[in-house]
Amino acid sequence: MSELTVSAAIEARRSVRKYTDAPVPDADVTAIVTLAGRAPSAWNVQPWRYIAVRDPAMKARLMGAANGQAQVGAAPVLFVVYSDMVGAMDVFPEATHPGMPQAARDNLAGHVRGVFAGMAPAAAEAWGNAQTYLSIGFLLLAAQSHGYATSPMLGFNAAEVKEILGLPANATIPALVAMGVAADDGFPTHRFPVDRILRTI
Amino acid sequence: MSELTVSAAIEARRSVRKYTDAPVPDADVTAIVTLAGRAPSAWNVQPWRYIAVRDPAMKARLMGAANGQAQVGAAPVLFVVYSDMVGAMDVFPEATHPGMPQAARDNLAGHVRGVFAGMAPAAAEAWGNAQTYLSIGFLLLAAQSHGYATSPMLGFNAAEVKEILGLPANATIPALVAMGVAADDGFPTHRFPVDRILRTI
Repeated sequence: MSELTVSAAIEARRSVRKYTDAPVPDADVTAIVTLAGRAPSAWNVQPWRYIAVRDPAMKARLMGAANGQAQVGAAPVLFVVYSDMVGAMDVFPEATHPGMPQAARDNLAGHVRGVFAGMAPAAAEAWGNAQTYLSIGFLLLAAQSHGYATSPMLGFNAAEVKEILGLPANATIPALVAMGVAADDGFPTHRFPVDRILRTI
Repeated sequence: MSELTVSAAIEARRSVRKYTDAPVPDADVTAIVTLAGRAPSAWNVQPWRYIAVRDPAMKARLMGAANGQAQVGAAPVLFVVYSDMVGAMDVFPEATHPGMPQAARDNLAGHVRGVFAGMAPAAAEAWGNAQTYLSIGFLLLAAQSHGYATSPMLGFNAAEVKEILGLPANATIPALVAMGVAADDGFPTHRFPVDRILRTI
């Protein structure tokens, strides 16, 4: 299958909630999340973590924590996307650039850990949560380009989702993202005209 | 110029801070922001607003509010990206889907306005700020696909930027994004291996 251009992927993308039974190979999931992981983040913190849920029983439990939305249980793959700043700081030295001298990497790691240690935990997590949306933007387009429709969702009980999956207490969940081969066209998107969101000075 | 695929755009993208003098036509800015504006947001709120700053004097002032980072003053286009939930709620009825009956659109507008009216203003703005990163993800890839390098930046004094541009008091600024034709290759990206950010269950 040939991939889509960025414009074509953006223009084709809709929130689709019905999927066919066509399988989604693990290789595609890995390729799509690899692309999502290439998103930039401040200091290269990369706070995003993806759980690709395929197990039907687990999807059914998550559906219960997501207002019963059918696509949570029915999508071939349900991504639970979370931000974990405690985990991100644990591994942060790995995120520093190997092209830098080791002393500079150590200094940077100390500085960045100090910045977040000096913030209220909820504020640090809100920061990571926001950055994670940038990766989700990449994920949606990478999926579209690989032939999959998606539906990002915010309607869920985050505490329940965290408990079901055993996520760390500090984690936040910016979105669930259902993914599969589209079984319908979805609802056409409707957006502001560009002059509502852009001005040039 | 032929556009890039999503994978090619993601793999080619680096934060580039030096740009040539090659002009960036207004038509490209409009096309790129139009694509960024097609990002999804909960309830289709679309809280993101883009200011494309071209005026050299204005860029120089903004550079002063951004730790003197040279690319703020030197990029052909500097996007100041902000979230304005007060403005977004003012125009929210336009964001409801014209394919819905008018009564349903009115109900939805009332519901969504009620949700945000019931939140602390800072919490509403944090929500819009986070959603805006998804649009920024689309912006970065749309720019890359149109032949432009970008550098998203978080190092700036938001209060000063807001004052210089006369932005509403409630606005938040998730990022400044410099854009132009790359004059160097930028720093190669370095990311966690995918098994650090993905697990399948």
